[in-house]
Amino acid sequence: MNRLAVLLCAVAVLPNVARCYSYQTKYLDVPVDHFNFGNNATFRLRYLVNDTHWRPDEGRPIFFYTGNEGDISMFAQNTGFVWEIAPQFGALVVFAEHRYYGQSLPFGNKSYSDPQHLGFLTSQQALADYVVLIAELQRPQRRPSPVVAFGGSYGGMLSAYLRLKYPASVVGAIAASAPVLQFPGLTPCGAFARIVTSDFASVAPSCADSIRRSWSEISNLTSSDAGRAWLSTAWRLCKPLASGADVSALKAWLADVYTNLAMINYPYATEFLAPVPAHPVAATCAPLGNATLGGKLLMRALFKAVSVYFNHTGRATCLDVGSSASGNLGDRGWDFQSCTEMVMPMCSDGQADMFEPQAWNFAHYSDGCHKRWGVRPSEQRAVLMYGGKELSTASNIVFSNGLLDPWSSGGVLRNVSDTALAIIIPEGAHHLDLRESNPADPPAVRAARQFHCDNIRTWIEKHQGAPPSDKPA
Amino acid sequence: MNRLAVLLCAVAVLPNVARCYSYQTKYLDVPVDHFNFGNNATFRLRYLVNDTHWRPDEGRPIFFYTGNEGDISMFAQNTGFVWEIAPQFGALVVFAEHRYYGQSLPFGNKSYSDPQHLGFLTSQQALADYVVLIAELQRPQRRPSPVVAFGGSYGGMLSAYLRLKYPASVVGAIAASAPVLQFPGLTPCGAFARIVTSDFASVAPSCADSIRRSWSEISNLTSSDAGRAWLSTAWRLCKPLASGADVSALKAWLADVYTNLAMINYPYATEFLAPVPAHPVAATCAPLGNATLGGKLLMRALFKAVSVYFNHTGRATCLDVGSSASGNLGDRGWDFQSCTEMVMPMCSDGQADMFEPQAWNFAHYSDGCHKRWGVRPSEQRAVLMYGGKELSTASNIVFSNGLLDPWSSGGVLRNVSDTALAIIIPEGAHHLDLRESNPADPPAVRAARQFHCDNIRTWIEKHQGAPPSDKPA
Repeated sequence: MNRLAVLLCAVAVLPNVARCYSYQTKYLDVPVDHFNFGNNATFRLRYLVNDTHWRPDEGRPIFFYTGNEGDISMFAQNTGFVWEIAPQFGALVVFAEHRYYGQSLPFGNKSYSDPQHLGFLTSQQALADYVVLIAELQRPQRRPSPVVAFGGSYGGMLSAYLRLKYPASVVGAIAASAPVLQFPGLTPCGAFARIVTSDFASVAPSCADSIRRSWSEISNLTSSDAGRAWLSTAWRLCKPLASGADVSALKAWLADVYTNLAMINYPYATEFLAPVPAHPVAATCAPLGNATLGGKLLMRALFKAVSVYFNHTGRATCLDVGSSASGNLGDRGWDFQSCTEMVMPMCSDGQADMFEPQAWNFAHYSDGCHKRWGVRPSEQRAVLMYGGKELSTASNIVFSNGLLDPWSSGGVLRNVSDTALAIIIPEGAHHLDLRESNPADPPAVRAARQFHCDNIRTWIEKHQGAPPSDKPA
Repeated sequence: MNRLAVLLCAVAVLPNVARCYSYQTKYLDVPVDHFNFGNNATFRLRYLVNDTHWRPDEGRPIFFYTGNEGDISMFAQNTGFVWEIAPQFGALVVFAEHRYYGQSLPFGNKSYSDPQHLGFLTSQQALADYVVLIAELQRPQRRPSPVVAFGGSYGGMLSAYLRLKYPASVVGAIAASAPVLQFPGLTPCGAFARIVTSDFASVAPSCADSIRRSWSEISNLTSSDAGRAWLSTAWRLCKPLASGADVSALKAWLADVYTNLAMINYPYATEFLAPVPAHPVAATCAPLGNATLGGKLLMRALFKAVSVYFNHTGRATCLDVGSSASGNLGDRGWDFQSCTEMVMPMCSDGQADMFEPQAWNFAHYSDGCHKRWGVRPSEQRAVLMYGGKELSTASNIVFSNGLLDPWSSGGVLRNVSDTALAIIIPEGAHHLDLRESNPADPPAVRAARQFHCDNIRTWIEKHQGAPPSDKPA
């Protein structure tokens, strides 16, 4: 099976992410619409498979990553944990791509053309894709292998939802940094911004303070043509600031960068959202140590700070505010999902957090969605579909959250049932536990990975009614 | 609220079904397609409400009947149990109509015109309708009332599925005679026919034997023009038998009648599928006591037998084989559902059962579906969607089954978890426990109803964290 395997390596610039994961790329035709028998259209869902260590005859499991909003190869590359534990479990490794991302486009290059084509981009449809794919993987087996779902972030939500909604398809789920409680009415809208801020303030209070101060400094500076010209040059903007809208876009980009830095605040260099050094928030804060900086001096320091994110490699010739701050993530698709069911209220007040004050205004949010996509979000849909805080019937799920991760604001931080358990990684950023092991890993993430393994083993043994013949170490 | 109430009475011909249930008829606009954001169409879902006894301020529950394949008023009329226990629970009574049945037609009189209009007739869409309606009922409440789902037959499946898939919407479900295991690969296809046969044979072995013999007698007799003419006259057929196809249709009608008689083999007269006397199987068997009858004598006896079903009132002027044998049930809609997701294999061998031998042939079944509806059934879909036998994560469900009921072949007859429990009613036919109480009820059905009440009380108390102020007796 590995004859045709594609060899994928994390880019070897950084010595500690140089491991290689090999897989076969496969496709399965699945229905475009699982919930309408008047629509027979299908499309090719991509999935990546490695069976090097699989021992299906011994009932060994399938490890199934429930792909989220991006090219699945990126998640395969950044989910080393699954690759590392597959041998000891004798597991098949599968990374399934989420519809409308990567190569899994139901209508090819028309997939994003209008709501009629895009409307089938829903988590319910994606879960049904995974159920069908799992059945296809098990089809040749006389006694189907137990399947364990893995996912991080939205992928973690999907892995938890897969277990919640289709417990016959997966015996359990590792839901890493899954903000299942980030929906309206469940979590204060400012919690996310406060965690980002706390990450920066914990490096040095002056860092968060400087950023908090910077918004009005930017406003002041860019209120004149000369100021806009100066900032455009000083920050080497690809497109000079020509209007207030450009300034707003710059600010939005900055806010995204701070958020992303908090998410990928890993203890070693990574390239997940962007190439960044180890402890990127600390690196970002380094130029912002002087609490008294203001005006152009603050602007120059800030540029140095955000260069950690957009130009760690030193290869960027200019700062492109128009480019996505999220690297390979499928921002368009996620924006549509946020504009339909994945409504996650966010706000900031500039006091408890370091961002510009911005209230959560659903009507305004909805108008933006309608303008961009021709759809309006359903405020309560996700809670209705997935139950909100009522998770007492959940079983065989580990909800892991790092406290450096802003998404932990909407995470499950307490056990919700006897077998739906929460584990906290105090020094962890966004789904650090799903990444490959690293000498710089804090002890808590090692413990979390062990906790995952223990639970996975329990789920499989319980499913099989007996322990596997050789227990993983 | 009751000012506009409609007063509905079970037809008072039969003194023991003369109770009246009053309700308001309401409508809620719900999405035609809950799983496609490119489709904004909505339609009016009908539901029936009675709030006479509701005490919402005390946190009293909503009793929510998950309507199945028929006009919802019929289910309201035949689900006296819910009405009877509502006062002691201080409950709101709601009967929700299933999309594509009764008045809840997403495309009006075009709803059944083609698969493009009919394709949204799926159990997943119906469940989403109920989730939306429940949220709407709870919307004005500061602390939403706990909702208990009730359903019989396919409605029982839906009540169980509602709890399985949307546990935040309903605290528990009474799933009466719900054949959740009647899907491919879960239950032998002949089990259903054997239970029907057993019902007839238990009245008198000669009864089942006579019916078993009758098929070849009918074939022999109708092989000639004269025989067909004789049978057409003797059986007062509205449309004389003109062809082999007519004979097949007659046989199919007979098989349906035997099945329906077994389903409604209640200990008192009812009008659920057709007006029939108490113990209708015994009444049907009465003319079939002579084990040696053959030829025209057997035919005359058989006509007398089935008259119990089609002409108990004595008002039928002729026997219309073309008419539905299932009274007010929405046969067209159910046929479509059977031709898409609700694939329930049935077969008979004429030995262990009293029917003509008929193998289960999925390919043939699928061809028939394609011919009638332009769709092909998905053999594994229901198992994939609802988990088949893997029900260990189910909670707060009572699966009740009567052993006279052929659908108990696919019922859950054993506890599947600590709180998903099975209860058997040995002398019960199809969801007898959901009917209003009757002096002729066997003790087991009284016990089952008490079991339901006990469980409902437990679910509500657990949900509320404390017992209600006055416990029901």
